[in-house]
Amino acid sequence: MVQASDFAFSGLHIPGNTSNSVGSRVTPVAVTQIPGLNTLGISMVRIDYAPWGINSLHTHPRATEILTVIEGSLEVGFVTSNPENRHITKILKKGDVFVFPVGLIHYQRNIGYGNVVAIAALSSQNPGVITIANTVFGSKPDINTDLLAKAFQVDKSVVWQLQTKF
Amino acid sequence: MVQASDFAFSGLHIPGNTSNSVGSRVTPVAVTQIPGLNTLGISMVRIDYAPWGINSLHTHPRATEILTVIEGSLEVGFVTSNPENRHITKILKKGDVFVFPVGLIHYQRNIGYGNVVAIAALSSQNPGVITIANTVFGSKPDINTDLLAKAFQVDKSVVWQLQTKF
Amino acid sequence: MVQASDFAFSGLHIPGNTSNSVGSRVTPVAVTQIPGLNTLGISMVRIDYAPWGINSLHTHPRATEILTVIEGSLEVGFVTSNPENRHITKILKKGDVFVFPVGLIHYQRNIGYGNVVAIAALSSQNPGVITIANTVFGSKPDINTDLLAKAFQVDKSVVWQLQTKF
Amino acid sequence: MVQASDFAFSGLHIPGNTSNSVGSRVTPVAVTQIPGLNTLGISMVRIDYAPWGINSLHTHPRATEILTVIEGSLEVGFVTSNPENRHITKILKKGDVFVFPVGLIHYQRNIGYGNVVAIAALSSQNPGVITIANTVFGSKPDINTDLLAKAFQVDKSVVWQLQTKF
Amino acid sequence: MVQASDFAFSGLHIPGNTSNSVGSRVTPVAVTQIPGLNTLGISMVRIDYAPWGINSLHTHPRATEILTVIEGSLEVGFVTSNPENRHITKILKKGDVFVFPVGLIHYQRNIGYGNVVAIAALSSQNPGVITIANTVFGSKPDINTDLLAKAFQVDKSVVWQLQTKF
Amino acid sequence: MVQASDFAFSGLHIPGNTSNSVGSRVTPVAVTQIPGLNTLGISMVRIDYAPWGINSLHTHPRATEILTVIEGSLEVGFVTSNPENRHITKILKKGDVFVFPVGLIHYQRNIGYGNVVAIAALSSQNPGVITIANTVFGSKPDINTDLLAKAFQVDKSVVWQLQTKF
Repeated sequence: MVQASDFAFSGLHIPGNTSNSVGSRVTPVAVTQIPGLNTLGISMVRIDYAPWGINSLHTHPRATEILTVIEGSLEVGFVTSNPENRHITKILKKGDVFVFPVGLIHYQRNIGYGNVVAIAALSSQNPGVITIANTVFGSKPDINTDLLAKAFQVDKSVVWQLQTKF
Repeated sequence: MVQASDFAFSGLHIPGNTSNSVGSRVTPVAVTQIPGLNTLGISMVRIDYAPWGINSLHTHPRATEILTVIEGSLEVGFVTSNPENRHITKILKKGDVFVFPVGLIHYQRNIGYGNVVAIAALSSQNPGVITIANTVFGSKPDINTDLLAKAFQVDKSVVWQLQTKF
Repeated sequence: MVQASDFAFSGLHIPGNTSNSVGSRVTPVAVTQIPGLNTLGISMVRIDYAPWGINSLHTHPRATEILTVIEGSLEVGFVTSNPENRHITKILKKGDVFVFPVGLIHYQRNIGYGNVVAIAALSSQNPGVITIANTVFGSKPDINTDLLAKAFQVDKSVVWQLQTKF
Repeated sequence: MVQASDFAFSGLHIPGNTSNSVGSRVTPVAVTQIPGLNTLGISMVRIDYAPWGINSLHTHPRATEILTVIEGSLEVGFVTSNPENRHITKILKKGDVFVFPVGLIHYQRNIGYGNVVAIAALSSQNPGVITIANTVFGSKPDINTDLLAKAFQVDKSVVWQLQTKF
Repeated sequence: MVQASDFAFSGLHIPGNTSNSVGSRVTPVAVTQIPGLNTLGISMVRIDYAPWGINSLHTHPRATEILTVIEGSLEVGFVTSNPENRHITKILKKGDVFVFPVGLIHYQRNIGYGNVVAIAALSSQNPGVITIANTVFGSKPDINTDLLAKAFQVDKSVVWQLQTKF
Repeated sequence: MVQASDFAFSGLHIPGNTSNSVGSRVTPVAVTQIPGLNTLGISMVRIDYAPWGINSLHTHPRATEILTVIEGSLEVGFVTSNPENRHITKILKKGDVFVFPVGLIHYQRNIGYGNVVAIAALSSQNPGVITIANTVFGSKPDINTDLLAKAFQVDKSVVWQLQTKF
């Protein structure tokens, strides 16, 4: 039988300061959290940013994202696909809204000394997240160092340095 | 050329008290407000509720909605389709999230003496809104009174009373 | 093994006069009746109207409807979404065709003294039906009376009167 | 402005006996006939069959079809894809319903001495029709005779005979 | 756990001369061969043609096809839907690419004395194949001979001749 | 009028050695090259690899890719999304097939001293390509160095070094 609990989730507002190593905390509400979202093509996320914290460069393989700032000011940006690789960026104030088109690499950054809070929604109940640094330099097992050195056109020592961080 | 202004919107945070006759104010951010949303399948909305204000019974013909409360407490509900017409309802606190599946009749109500603010997202860049009362009793031109009297199984005088309000 | 019975249904032509309280009888042929329709995105329905009978105001949350009259004359109508709420209506004769776009509130009415028969198709194998009166005033459990009184801008006594009918 | 004429069509009921050379007449109501159908994913068709008339083997490249008989009895059939090529067939009486899954080759045949009428709907506003005989043996320009002889494993004289008919 | 074997297939390159009766061999790589393709909307096929071999007239009920020649020269063609039934044809050399739109009848033919190899891709993980000759004249059970004689406007003896071949 | 030239493209086989700085050359055949592909949901690409050449880490924001090797041997790999970031890799021989699911970061590398050729297809007529290195370190204008230093957890001097390469 249909029940309210299949369509509800509590806890997008979590006090505390358990941000990650780059100064942000992402709380997703997708089909894992709300089973009733299945096939409905939408999900939500709350993002908290410590001062100067970032939500690192990432993509969502199956969703466009729309984001609004509910507390503080936030720098946001995405880069368009080849061959332009145009970097589109903006500083959002409380109440501003921004869109990250499906699959494009994007980020957010708190550029102030206070906390920032954003609410975002994604056009899939299972959007997925690919953090670029973790995926490229922290995959299990590692991507071949020679290959990464060629891809990023640096010495292998630089690649090793990067791989130890993730 | 791609520009930030095609993907951004300012003004989801509007101070003032211009709520409508039932005590709410809806500020949509869809493809009309952000041209870059076209074909991307998502949009956003901010809803402000005066004390005891409601966002009246309505449907979105082309979208599921996911909503979170960012200020205050909010009663939410939807009714499932025939033949069950089961009424699913819940009281949301700040940080709670709720889903209104595509096309179902739903509502929200501020059940307290303070203001309430919610952020919601919809799974279409052009979701549409059909407010039941306005559509049924306030269409232009009116739906035939005999027909409405039969549909709602009341005297035509009751229908007339309803039609004068919308 | 694929069998004809997975793609067939008998009984869209049912003699007898078992119409409902508003003078119509709806016989659906969707995925419940024909298992082979699954994922195929279409279904069919026959609607019989007693003299002056109506198919009350309703929506299909997941489908557009196309209807043709095969016996008699039929008034049809739908109302567009906010803010226009434009009422589009037409009297169909035998052989006329009409479209009700996805999610919009619509109805049909026999405006004569003979029986009317229509065949309609819907753009989903599981379109769903939401009868407005039953959903708003007959949900289980009831929607709060204060809320309905505010939504329809009438006294609670009028709401009670409506709620007793469904 | 939205108008009823964008959503309506007259003439699915055409008296007269202008059936084609194989004894049937197809009257489509798709986006060409009703502009408002655009993007809505559905269309309708009326088919009239003279005694022993057929609606020859054909496919719809972009739609599933659901069909009901409103007058007379009708043999219907489709063939499944490789490698089974299973022929699924049934004799429909008035009020029976049958489904032809997207892209499969199918046909209908009046197996009696009276007229038969069917109403069908398709899961696209622009389903397309490919009549096998006309496409294979009557294309403009012709498909190469050697190729057809090999494809159908007959003498070229048989292919020529077929090509002169279409 | 995700494994490489769920996303891989070996054997699109099969030496030997096991071509079918019309001089071609089709090796598909779809969801049956690669389980990880499920829901991803794409598949691949290798086609080998003996001298003067054909890939007989067929359709894919759920996919568009894009094909490139990697060895030899190849005549390709498709026929548009009713009422034009326009035959679009071209001779492809190594490195040329051609598109067969979803559901249209198409074919390929080796028009030389050497072997030809093509790689094609289809816009579904489960595109299906309907070979026209096998489906029309070799279905199990047979389509009625009278019906086929009328559909192709030939004597029943010609139909019988065709039916014995498939 | 429909013409063969709308559905055809010549030049997927280009002799010469104009590979890019990382030793590969990508020749796409999408809607820009073949106008008739519009809305059909598929495209193709040929990739040539010089000895030890790579097709650098990249994603397709709107498509899954299926690839087959037609000459030589090729290392392929992709990384799954958070939190696993599992690296799935395989060495393909001539005739092997591999799938890169939509939006995931992937690469190919020639691990031998001869040339390698692959044919791949994508589940969109306009899949897009996002080369990670170019997008992250070569966008126009640059992404902020502090932000990149934090995202990749390295000194700004390393970021500068990377940014000068793209």
